[in-house]
Amino acid sequence: MHTDLVAALDIGGTKIAGAVVDGHGTILVRAQRPTPAREDGDTVMRAVEEVLGELTTSPLWGRARAIGIGSAGPVDASAGTVSPVNVPGWRDFPLVERVRAVSGGLPVELIGDGVAITAAEHWQGAARGHDNALCMVVSTGVGGGLVLNGRLHPGPTGNAGHIGHISVDLDGDPCPCGSRGCVERLASGPNIARHALENGWRPGPDGDATAAAVAAAARAGDPVAAASFERAAQALAAGIAATATLVEIDIAVVGGGVGKAGDVLFTPLRKALADYATLSFVRRLTVVPARTGTDAGLVGAAAAALAGLPGAAAGV
Amino acid sequence: MHTDLVAALDIGGTKIAGAVVDGHGTILVRAQRPTPAREDGDTVMRAVEEVLGELTTSPLWGRARAIGIGSAGPVDASAGTVSPVNVPGWRDFPLVERVRAVSGGLPVELIGDGVAITAAEHWQGAARGHDNALCMVVSTGVGGGLVLNGRLHPGPTGNAGHIGHISVDLDGDPCPCGSRGCVERLASGPNIARHALENGWRPGPDGDATAAAVAAAARAGDPVAAASFERAAQALAAGIAATATLVEIDIAVVGGGVGKAGDVLFTPLRKALADYATLSFVRRLTVVPARTGTDAGLVGAAAAALAGLPGAAAGV
Repeated sequence: MHTDLVAALDIGGTKIAGAVVDGHGTILVRAQRPTPAREDGDTVMRAVEEVLGELTTSPLWGRARAIGIGSAGPVDASAGTVSPVNVPGWRDFPLVERVRAVSGGLPVELIGDGVAITAAEHWQGAARGHDNALCMVVSTGVGGGLVLNGRLHPGPTGNAGHIGHISVDLDGDPCPCGSRGCVERLASGPNIARHALENGWRPGPDGDATAAAVAAAARAGDPVAAASFERAAQALAAGIAATATLVEIDIAVVGGGVGKAGDVLFTPLRKALADYATLSFVRRLTVVPARTGTDAGLVGAAAAALAGLPGAAAGV
Repeated sequence: MHTDLVAALDIGGTKIAGAVVDGHGTILVRAQRPTPAREDGDTVMRAVEEVLGELTTSPLWGRARAIGIGSAGPVDASAGTVSPVNVPGWRDFPLVERVRAVSGGLPVELIGDGVAITAAEHWQGAARGHDNALCMVVSTGVGGGLVLNGRLHPGPTGNAGHIGHISVDLDGDPCPCGSRGCVERLASGPNIARHALENGWRPGPDGDATAAAVAAAARAGDPVAAASFERAAQALAAGIAATATLVEIDIAVVGGGVGKAGDVLFTPLRKALADYATLSFVRRLTVVPARTGTDAGLVGAAAAALAGLPGAAAGV
């Protein structure tokens, strides 16, 4: 572990969070601003600069040796740019250069948010001790990241592990990404709710028609609600099995709002995984809930920054 | 490059080939036996021993520093065992131990045959110079392997890259592997021929009802034959796009008998790839025919053996 500290940024469509983090992953200083997601690119960047500006007022800032950024994707780590779907003012936005400029030239590591959460789960969560893992976030969208051979596998552009946009239904419904039958199109929270509503499920008196409400209905015995989670579980299982068959992972970690549904999701997911993960070398694959919480993006970005430092331990 | 030599074994359901190979991938000595695939395990092993015995009579054998084995799968490199689908006498057969015993204790590297062909294409073929590549064999079955970060990615058990058995049609036809809608179920040679026959294509006077005959008919303008290759191309494209989206590859290399169909396959394959590979970081993905020939399995097994030697260049 390092005695050095690092800074971390977690950039999403709703908030921009920053922190100073130590070599154990403990967050020592925090700052946060809402993302002005509908504004022009410079306005969004000013929010990032305010977060960094607040961090630099801490006496600990002087010990930060690098900055890790986990950003909503797509990102391009090779070019140092980001184009988050939900932040239209940023298209090929040179985030790495801009962050480096306002932070005194510290080295900057950029990864996608799915990769960042994977780094956090591998460092401190359910994937700890696993050399080959898939970590997923199933919520409004479906994202993910990979650990291969004991190390984070961001890929050349920092986007690897995008399991939400692999097709498991090649003749299926069009996905906003332009493809068809993507895992996200079948398994995201809004698509679970849509499936339930289309098949006759109706929200209760509170009008809550989210996947969380569908999960509650499924737990209370509603068969349509249960079937909606079963369909999502089938798609997730096909995607997880495909990943394991392609790169050999031994654990899949599922987080995000839908991941919190518990047995309503995990029971049919484990059953479906047995149907799709059939070859001898993937049969022992397990699937478990994520353990890290809302700080996962910051902790994962810090892990990436620490891994880039000279003398860093492999496997952070 | 090494001045050392290595031995290589390519073990398939039809033949067992062996060679002594130099550090440039040149085959210096060869031996081969038919695979007694329906016999008991010891009989199959005797054929391997005969191949090795013939190689040891060469004066070059004494310079071999390791043995690489590419075997029909599934293999288990961590246990040193193989269970080739088409060789029922070998189930969890301790091939590494048996080969080591008859070769004077040389180090043995075991990989699956798809991984071996990938090593050959990366060393000497169409994937040369690419740090992130998928190489596939599309023939009676569909196999493959991956190069990630400039190195072969066999995975812990030597089976990574098994693209033939990822599901691209989660509600699709059952596959002999136990899953549904696998790439192989839609895109292998026998399945291309079956699709054509089911849709009214009939073989010519020679009675040839193989995928090669369907390809010839497609080239001659038969629309059913062409549609059969288009369906296979669609499944291959969904699988290749999934792989790129998961691990970030920039090239897919397609070999094997179906890969030799030329434009009948590659034109619809490139078109379908644009439909499924939609995210920014996979849009530049190219797909090309394999360049290595029937010795690819031996050359790739040799590459794996060379990569395992002390002082080996990374990336072989």
